[in-house]
Amino acid sequence: MEKGLLIVISGPSGAGKGTIYRNIIERTDIKRSVSVTTRKPRPGEIDGVDYFFRSEEEYQQMIAAGEFLETAEVYKNYYGTPKAPVFENLRNGNDVLFEVDVHGAKSIKKKYPEAIEIFIMTPDFDVLEKRLRGRGTETESSLKTRLGSAKRELSKYEMFDYIVLNDDAEEATARVLDIITAEKCRVKNNTDIIQKLLNQA
Amino acid sequence: MEKGLLIVISGPSGAGKGTIYRNIIERTDIKRSVSVTTRKPRPGEIDGVDYFFRSEEEYQQMIAAGEFLETAEVYKNYYGTPKAPVFENLRNGNDVLFEVDVHGAKSIKKKYPEAIEIFIMTPDFDVLEKRLRGRGTETESSLKTRLGSAKRELSKYEMFDYIVLNDDAEEATARVLDIITAEKCRVKNNTDIIQKLLNQA
Repeated sequence: MEKGLLIVISGPSGAGKGTIYRNIIERTDIKRSVSVTTRKPRPGEIDGVDYFFRSEEEYQQMIAAGEFLETAEVYKNYYGTPKAPVFENLRNGNDVLFEVDVHGAKSIKKKYPEAIEIFIMTPDFDVLEKRLRGRGTETESSLKTRLGSAKRELSKYEMFDYIVLNDDAEEATARVLDIITAEKCRVKNNTDIIQKLLNQA
Repeated sequence: MEKGLLIVISGPSGAGKGTIYRNIIERTDIKRSVSVTTRKPRPGEIDGVDYFFRSEEEYQQMIAAGEFLETAEVYKNYYGTPKAPVFENLRNGNDVLFEVDVHGAKSIKKKYPEAIEIFIMTPDFDVLEKRLRGRGTETESSLKTRLGSAKRELSKYEMFDYIVLNDDAEEATARVLDIITAEKCRVKNNTDIIQKLLNQA
Protein backbone atom coordinates (compact mmCIF):
# COMPACT_ATOMS: atom_id res chain seq x y z
CA MET A 1 0.00 0.00 0.00
CA GLU A 2 1.17 3.50 -0.79
CA LYS A 3 1.69 6.05 1.96
CA GLY A 4 -0.96 8.73 2.43
CA LEU A 5 -0.38 12.34 1.41
CA LEU A 6 0.28 15.17 3.84
CA ILE A 7 -1.50 18.21 2.44
CA VAL A 8 -1.08 21.70 3.87
CA ILE A 9 -3.43 24.60 3.20
CA SER A 10 -1.95 27.95 4.13
CA GLY A 11 -2.18 31.63 3.24
CA PRO A 12 -2.94 34.98 4.82
CA SER A 13 -5.74 35.66 7.23
CA GLY A 14 -8.91 36.53 5.26
CA ALA A 15 -8.00 34.52 2.13
CA GLY A 16 -10.58 31.86 3.01
CA LYS A 17 -8.38 28.88 3.86
CA GLY A 18 -10.58 27.93 6.84
CA THR A 19 -13.71 27.49 4.67
CA ILE A 20 -11.85 25.40 2.09
CA TYR A 21 -10.33 23.28 4.88
CA ARG A 22 -13.73 22.62 6.47
CA ASN A 23 -15.34 21.82 3.09
CA ILE A 24 -12.72 19.16 2.38
CA ILE A 25 -12.81 17.62 5.86
CA GLU A 26 -16.62 17.43 5.71
CA ARG A 27 -16.86 16.02 2.17
CA THR A 28 -13.98 13.55 1.92
CA ASP A 29 -12.24 10.77 3.86
CA ILE A 30 -9.16 12.94 4.29
CA LYS A 31 -8.16 13.07 7.96
CA ARG A 32 -7.63 16.21 9.99
CA SER A 33 -4.84 16.42 12.47
CA VAL A 34 -5.76 17.05 16.11
CA SER A 35 -3.59 19.78 17.62
CA VAL A 36 -2.07 19.82 21.08
CA THR A 37 -2.76 22.97 23.10
CA THR A 38 -2.05 24.43 26.52
CA ARG A 39 -5.23 26.51 26.53
CA LYS A 40 -8.08 25.41 28.77
CA PRO A 41 -10.89 23.38 27.15
CA ARG A 42 -14.04 25.37 26.36
CA PRO A 43 -17.43 23.92 27.33
CA GLY A 44 -18.20 20.90 25.15
CA GLU A 45 -14.64 20.46 23.84
CA ILE A 46 -13.37 16.90 24.11
CA ASP A 47 -9.76 15.91 24.76
CA GLY A 48 -8.40 13.95 21.78
CA VAL A 49 -11.18 15.14 19.46
CA ASP A 50 -11.07 18.95 19.41
CA TYR A 51 -7.58 19.17 20.87
CA PHE A 52 -5.18 17.24 23.01
CA PHE A 53 -5.27 19.41 26.14
CA ARG A 54 -1.92 19.42 27.92
CA SER A 55 -0.29 21.42 30.72
CA GLU A 56 2.45 23.85 29.80
CA GLU A 57 4.97 21.54 31.45
CA GLU A 58 3.84 18.56 29.36
CA TYR A 59 3.91 20.76 26.26
CA GLN A 60 7.49 21.89 26.91
CA GLN A 61 8.51 18.25 27.37
CA MET A 62 6.95 17.40 23.98
CA ILE A 63 8.89 20.28 22.36
CA ALA A 64 12.12 19.07 23.98
CA ALA A 65 11.47 15.52 22.75
CA GLY A 66 10.99 16.79 19.16
CA GLU A 67 7.40 15.55 19.05
CA PHE A 68 5.99 18.43 16.97
CA LEU A 69 5.74 19.04 13.25
CA GLU A 70 5.12 22.70 14.07
CA THR A 71 4.35 24.69 17.17
CA ALA A 72 3.30 28.29 17.76
CA GLU A 73 2.42 30.60 20.63
CA VAL A 74 -0.82 32.55 20.24
CA TYR A 75 -1.93 34.91 23.02
CA LYS A 76 0.16 33.13 25.68
CA ASN A 77 -1.16 29.69 24.73
CA TYR A 78 0.72 27.08 22.76
CA TYR A 79 -0.70 25.20 19.79
CA GLY A 80 1.18 22.43 18.03
CA THR A 81 0.86 19.54 15.60
CA PRO A 82 2.07 16.25 17.10
CA LYS A 83 4.05 14.09 14.66
CA ALA A 84 3.07 10.62 15.88
CA PRO A 85 -0.66 10.47 14.97
CA VAL A 86 -0.01 12.19 11.61
CA PHE A 87 2.74 9.76 10.63
CA GLU A 88 0.61 6.81 11.74
CA ASN A 89 -2.20 7.98 9.46
CA LEU A 90 0.21 8.41 6.54
CA ARG A 91 1.68 4.94 7.12
CA ASN A 92 -1.84 3.48 7.07
CA GLY A 93 -2.44 5.07 3.65
CA ASN A 94 -4.64 7.89 4.94
CA ASP A 95 -4.24 11.42 3.61
CA VAL A 96 -4.00 14.15 6.24
CA LEU A 97 -4.99 17.78 5.72
CA PHE A 98 -3.66 20.77 7.67
CA GLU A 99 -4.68 24.39 7.87
CA VAL A 100 -1.75 26.40 9.21
CA ASP A 101 -0.22 29.85 8.81
CA VAL A 102 2.80 30.40 6.55
CA HIS A 103 5.19 30.00 9.46
CA GLY A 104 3.66 26.58 10.26
CA ALA A 105 3.76 25.56 6.57
CA LYS A 106 7.47 26.33 6.48
CA SER A 107 8.09 24.29 9.61
CA ILE A 108 6.13 21.28 8.27
CA LYS A 109 7.97 21.37 4.92
CA LYS A 110 11.28 21.38 6.75
CA LYS A 111 10.37 18.31 8.81
CA TYR A 112 8.44 16.50 6.06
CA PRO A 113 9.64 17.60 2.59
CA GLU A 114 7.07 15.38 0.79
CA ALA A 115 4.29 17.64 2.19
CA ILE A 116 2.14 19.16 -0.56
CA GLU A 117 1.71 22.80 0.31
CA ILE A 118 -1.02 24.99 -1.18
CA PHE A 119 -1.10 28.77 -0.75
CA ILE A 120 -4.63 30.21 -0.70
CA MET A 121 -4.90 33.87 -1.69
CA THR A 122 -7.65 36.25 -2.77
CA PRO A 123 -7.56 37.35 -6.45
CA ASP A 124 -5.99 40.63 -5.24
CA PHE A 125 -5.24 42.62 -2.11
CA ASP A 126 -8.34 44.84 -2.45
CA VAL A 127 -10.53 41.75 -2.10
CA LEU A 128 -8.48 40.68 0.92
CA GLU A 129 -8.99 44.10 2.53
CA LYS A 130 -12.74 43.97 1.82
CA ARG A 131 -13.04 40.49 3.37
CA LEU A 132 -11.13 41.54 6.48
CA ARG A 133 -13.29 44.70 6.80
CA GLY A 134 -16.40 42.55 6.30
CA ARG A 135 -15.57 40.63 9.45
CA GLY A 136 -16.25 43.82 11.39
CA THR A 137 -13.72 42.79 14.02
CA GLU A 138 -10.62 44.57 12.75
CA THR A 139 -9.47 48.03 13.81
CA GLU A 140 -7.75 50.21 11.19
CA SER A 141 -4.44 49.41 12.81
CA SER A 142 -4.95 45.62 12.99
CA LEU A 143 -6.17 45.75 9.37
CA LYS A 144 -2.92 47.43 8.30
CA THR A 145 -0.93 44.81 10.21
CA ARG A 146 -2.84 41.96 8.56
CA LEU A 147 -2.41 43.40 5.05
CA GLY A 148 1.31 43.91 5.69
CA SER A 149 1.59 40.30 6.89
CA ALA A 150 -0.34 39.08 3.84
CA LYS A 151 2.15 40.76 1.51
CA ARG A 152 5.10 39.32 3.43
CA GLU A 153 3.46 35.87 3.36
CA LEU A 154 2.76 36.00 -0.39
CA SER A 155 6.37 37.07 -1.01
CA LYS A 156 7.35 33.64 0.33
CA TYR A 157 5.39 31.96 -2.48
CA GLU A 158 8.37 30.01 -3.77
CA MET A 159 8.30 27.63 -0.80
CA PHE A 160 4.80 26.51 -1.84
CA ASP A 161 3.94 23.89 -4.47
CA TYR A 162 0.61 25.35 -5.55
CA ILE A 163 -1.33 28.61 -5.38
CA VAL A 164 -5.12 28.81 -5.54
CA LEU A 165 -6.67 32.24 -6.05
CA ASN A 166 -9.88 32.07 -4.07
CA ASP A 167 -12.56 34.08 -5.84
CA ASP A 168 -15.33 31.67 -4.91
CA ALA A 169 -15.00 29.18 -2.03
CA GLU A 170 -16.70 26.32 -3.93
CA GLU A 171 -14.47 26.74 -6.98
CA ALA A 172 -11.38 27.03 -4.82
CA THR A 173 -12.38 23.90 -2.88
CA ALA A 174 -12.81 22.04 -6.19
CA ARG A 175 -9.38 23.18 -7.32
CA VAL A 176 -7.74 21.98 -4.09
CA LEU A 177 -9.49 18.61 -4.54
CA ASP A 178 -8.19 18.46 -8.14
CA ILE A 179 -4.67 19.07 -6.83
CA ILE A 180 -5.07 16.19 -4.36
CA THR A 181 -6.40 13.89 -7.12
CA ALA A 182 -3.47 14.85 -9.36
CA GLU A 183 -0.94 14.22 -6.59
CA LYS A 184 -2.45 10.76 -6.09
CA CYS A 185 -1.72 10.11 -9.80
CA ARG A 186 1.95 11.13 -9.50
CA VAL A 187 4.22 8.30 -10.59
CA LYS A 188 6.29 8.67 -7.41
CA ASN A 189 3.14 8.05 -5.33
CA ASN A 190 2.32 4.87 -7.30
CA THR A 191 5.59 2.95 -7.47
CA ASP A 192 4.21 0.10 -5.33
CA ILE A 193 1.20 -0.38 -7.62
CA ILE A 194 3.32 -0.18 -10.77
CA GLN A 195 5.88 -2.67 -9.44
CA LYS A 196 3.06 -5.06 -8.56
CA LEU A 197 1.63 -4.70 -12.07
CA LEU A 198 5.04 -5.39 -13.62
CA ASN A 199 5.59 -8.45 -11.43
CA GLN A 200 2.21 -9.91 -12.42
CA ALA A 201 2.80 -9.44 -16.14
CA MET B 1 0.78 36.22 -19.46
CA GLU B 2 1.97 32.78 -18.41
CA LYS B 3 3.11 30.27 -21.02
CA GLY B 4 0.73 27.44 -21.94
CA LEU B 5 1.33 23.86 -20.82
CA LEU B 6 2.56 21.09 -23.09
CA ILE B 7 0.72 17.94 -22.00
CA VAL B 8 1.59 14.49 -23.33
CA ILE B 9 -0.69 11.45 -23.09
CA SER B 10 1.12 8.19 -23.70
CA GLY B 11 0.95 4.50 -22.83
CA PRO B 12 0.66 1.12 -24.50
CA SER B 13 -1.61 0.29 -27.38
CA GLY B 14 -5.03 -0.75 -26.00
CA ALA B 15 -4.82 1.29 -22.79
CA GLY B 16 -7.33 3.80 -24.11
CA LYS B 17 -5.18 6.91 -24.57
CA GLY B 18 -6.88 7.75 -27.91
CA THR B 19 -10.36 8.01 -26.35
CA ILE B 20 -9.11 10.18 -23.49
CA TYR B 21 -7.23 12.39 -25.97
CA ARG B 22 -10.32 12.89 -28.15
CA ASN B 23 -12.55 13.57 -25.12
CA ILE B 24 -10.24 16.36 -23.97
CA ILE B 25 -9.79 17.92 -27.42
CA GLU B 26 -13.58 17.90 -27.96
CA ARG B 27 -14.52 19.28 -24.53
CA THR B 28 -11.87 21.90 -23.78
CA ASP B 29 -9.97 24.77 -25.41
CA ILE B 30 -6.75 22.78 -25.26
CA LYS B 31 -5.09 22.71 -28.69
CA ARG B 32 -4.04 19.61 -30.55
CA SER B 33 -0.85 19.57 -32.51
CA VAL B 34 -1.05 18.86 -36.23
CA SER B 35 1.52 16.26 -37.29
CA VAL B 36 3.63 16.29 -40.41
CA THR B 37 3.51 13.10 -42.49
CA THR B 38 4.90 11.67 -45.70
CA ARG B 39 1.91 9.40 -46.25
CA LYS B 40 -0.55 10.32 -48.99
CA PRO B 41 -3.73 12.17 -47.92
CA ARG B 42 -6.85 10.00 -47.70
CA PRO B 43 -10.08 11.26 -49.29
CA GLY B 44 -11.39 14.22 -47.29
CA GLU B 45 -8.18 14.89 -45.38
CA ILE B 46 -7.10 18.52 -45.46
CA ASP B 47 -3.48 19.72 -45.46
CA GLY B 48 -2.81 21.74 -42.33
CA VAL B 49 -5.90 20.41 -40.53
CA ASP B 50 -5.57 16.63 -40.41
CA TYR B 51 -1.86 16.60 -41.21
CA PHE B 52 0.76 18.68 -42.91
CA PHE B 53 1.38 16.48 -45.97
CA ARG B 54 5.00 16.67 -47.11
CA SER B 55 7.22 14.77 -49.55
CA GLU B 56 9.89 12.52 -48.15
CA GLU B 57 12.53 14.97 -49.32
CA GLU B 58 10.86 17.87 -47.52
CA TYR B 59 10.49 15.68 -44.41
CA GLN B 60 14.20 14.79 -44.39
CA GLN B 61 15.07 18.48 -44.71
CA MET B 62 12.88 19.24 -41.66
CA ILE B 63 14.66 16.49 -39.69
CA ALA B 64 18.06 17.88 -40.71
CA ALA B 65 16.98 21.39 -39.65
CA GLY B 66 15.93 20.09 -36.19
CA GLU B 67 12.33 21.14 -36.74
CA PHE B 68 10.73 18.18 -34.94
CA LEU B 69 9.85 17.56 -31.30
CA GLU B 70 9.59 13.86 -32.18
CA THR B 71 9.51 11.82 -35.34
CA ALA B 72 8.81 8.15 -36.08
CA GLU B 73 8.60 5.80 -39.01
CA VAL B 74 5.46 3.65 -39.22
CA TYR B 75 5.02 1.22 -42.14
CA LYS B 76 7.47 3.15 -44.35
CA ASN B 77 5.77 6.49 -43.72
CA TYR B 78 7.11 9.22 -41.47
CA TYR B 79 5.06 11.01 -38.83
CA GLY B 80 6.42 13.88 -36.78
CA THR B 81 5.50 16.76 -34.49
CA PRO B 82 6.77 20.11 -35.78
CA LYS B 83 8.16 22.39 -33.05
CA ALA B 84 7.22 25.80 -34.46
CA PRO B 85 3.38 25.72 -34.23
CA VAL B 86 3.51 24.06 -30.79
CA PHE B 87 5.90 26.63 -29.36
CA GLU B 88 3.86 29.47 -30.85
CA ASN B 89 0.73 28.14 -29.11
CA LEU B 90 2.60 27.83 -25.80
CA ARG B 91 3.97 31.38 -26.13
CA ASN B 92 0.43 32.64 -26.72
CA GLY B 93 -0.70 31.02 -23.46
CA ASN B 94 -2.47 28.08 -25.11
CA ASP B 95 -2.13 24.58 -23.69
CA VAL B 96 -1.26 21.87 -26.22
CA LEU B 97 -2.14 18.19 -25.88
CA PHE B 98 -0.32 15.28 -27.53
CA GLU B 99 -1.08 11.61 -27.88
CA VAL B 100 2.15 9.77 -28.66
CA ASP B 101 3.79 6.42 -27.96
CA VAL B 102 6.37 6.02 -25.20
CA HIS B 103 9.22 6.58 -27.63
CA GLY B 104 7.67 9.90 -28.71
CA ALA B 105 7.04 10.89 -25.08
CA LYS B 106 10.72 10.36 -24.30
CA SER B 107 11.77 12.43 -27.28
CA ILE B 108 9.44 15.31 -26.34
CA LYS B 109 10.62 15.33 -22.70
CA LYS B 110 14.21 15.52 -23.90
CA LYS B 111 13.53 18.53 -26.11
CA TYR B 112 11.04 20.21 -23.76
CA PRO B 113 11.65 19.17 -20.14
CA GLU B 114 8.70 21.24 -18.87
CA ALA B 115 6.34 18.84 -20.71
CA ILE B 116 3.81 17.19 -18.40
CA GLU B 117 3.74 13.52 -19.32
CA ILE B 118 0.92 11.18 -18.32
CA PHE B 119 1.11 7.40 -18.75
CA ILE B 120 -2.26 5.76 -19.43
CA MET B 121 -2.51 2.09 -18.48
CA THR B 122 -5.26 -0.43 -17.89
CA PRO B 123 -5.77 -1.56 -14.24
CA ASP B 124 -3.83 -4.75 -15.12
CA PHE B 125 -2.42 -6.69 -18.07
CA ASP B 126 -5.44 -9.05 -18.28
CA VAL B 127 -7.68 -6.09 -19.05
CA LEU B 128 -5.17 -4.88 -21.65
CA GLU B 129 -5.20 -8.31 -23.31
CA LYS B 130 -9.02 -8.39 -23.28
CA ARG B 131 -9.22 -4.95 -24.89
CA LEU B 132 -6.71 -5.86 -27.58
CA ARG B 133 -8.60 -9.13 -28.29
CA GLY B 134 -11.87 -7.16 -28.34
CA ARG B 135 -10.57 -5.16 -31.31
CA GLY B 136 -10.72 -8.35 -33.34
CA THR B 137 -7.82 -7.15 -35.47
CA GLU B 138 -4.91 -8.78 -33.67
CA THR B 139 -3.41 -12.17 -34.50
CA GLU B 140 -2.09 -14.28 -31.59
CA SER B 141 1.41 -13.30 -32.59
CA SER B 142 0.73 -9.55 -32.88
CA LEU B 143 -1.10 -9.77 -29.53
CA LYS B 144 1.97 -11.26 -27.89
CA THR B 145 4.14 -8.55 -29.42
CA ARG B 146 1.82 -5.81 -28.14
CA LEU B 147 1.68 -7.24 -24.60
CA GLY B 148 5.47 -7.54 -24.55
CA SER B 149 5.78 -3.92 -25.70
CA ALA B 150 3.26 -2.83 -23.05
CA LYS B 151 5.38 -4.36 -20.30
CA ARG B 152 8.54 -2.75 -21.67
CA GLU B 153 6.74 0.59 -21.90
CA LEU B 154 5.38 0.41 -18.34
CA SER B 155 8.85 -0.45 -17.06
CA LYS B 156 9.89 3.04 -18.22
CA TYR B 157 7.35 4.59 -15.84
CA GLU B 158 9.94 6.69 -14.04
CA MET B 159 10.28 9.08 -16.98
CA PHE B 160 6.59 10.00 -16.61
CA ASP B 161 5.13 12.55 -14.20
CA TYR B 162 1.75 10.90 -13.74
CA ILE B 163 0.06 7.55 -14.22
CA VAL B 164 -3.70 7.12 -14.75
CA LEU B 165 -5.12 3.61 -14.51
CA ASN B 166 -7.93 3.61 -17.04
CA ASP B 167 -10.77 1.46 -15.75
CA ASP B 168 -13.45 3.72 -17.20
CA ALA B 169 -12.74 6.24 -19.98
CA GLU B 170 -14.90 8.98 -18.44
CA GLU B 171 -13.24 8.68 -15.03
CA ALA B 172 -9.80 8.56 -16.60
CA THR B 173 -10.60 11.65 -18.71
CA ALA B 174 -11.73 13.47 -15.55
CA ARG B 175 -8.49 12.50 -13.82
CA VAL B 176 -6.37 13.81 -16.69
CA LEU B 177 -8.35 17.08 -16.60
CA ASP B 178 -7.73 17.29 -12.81
CA ILE B 179 -4.01 16.86 -13.46
CA ILE B 180 -4.11 19.73 -15.98
CA THR B 181 -6.03 21.94 -13.51
CA ALA B 182 -3.52 21.12 -10.78
CA GLU B 183 -0.57 21.92 -13.06
CA LYS B 184 -2.15 25.30 -13.83
CA CYS B 185 -2.13 25.96 -10.05
CA ARG B 186 1.58 25.16 -9.68
CA VAL B 187 3.46 28.09 -8.19
CA LYS B 188 6.09 27.87 -10.95
CA ASN B 189 3.32 28.32 -13.55
CA ASN B 190 2.00 31.43 -11.79
CA THR B 191 5.07 33.53 -11.03
CA ASP B 192 3.94 36.34 -13.39
CA ILE B 193 0.55 36.61 -11.69
CA ILE B 194 2.09 36.51 -8.21
CA GLN B 195 4.69 39.15 -9.06
CA LYS B 196 1.96 41.39 -10.46
CA LEU B 197 -0.08 40.93 -7.26
CA LEU B 198 2.95 41.79 -5.13
CA ASN B 199 3.72 44.88 -7.19
CA GLN B 200 0.15 46.16 -6.84
CA ALA B 201 0.09 45.70 -3.05
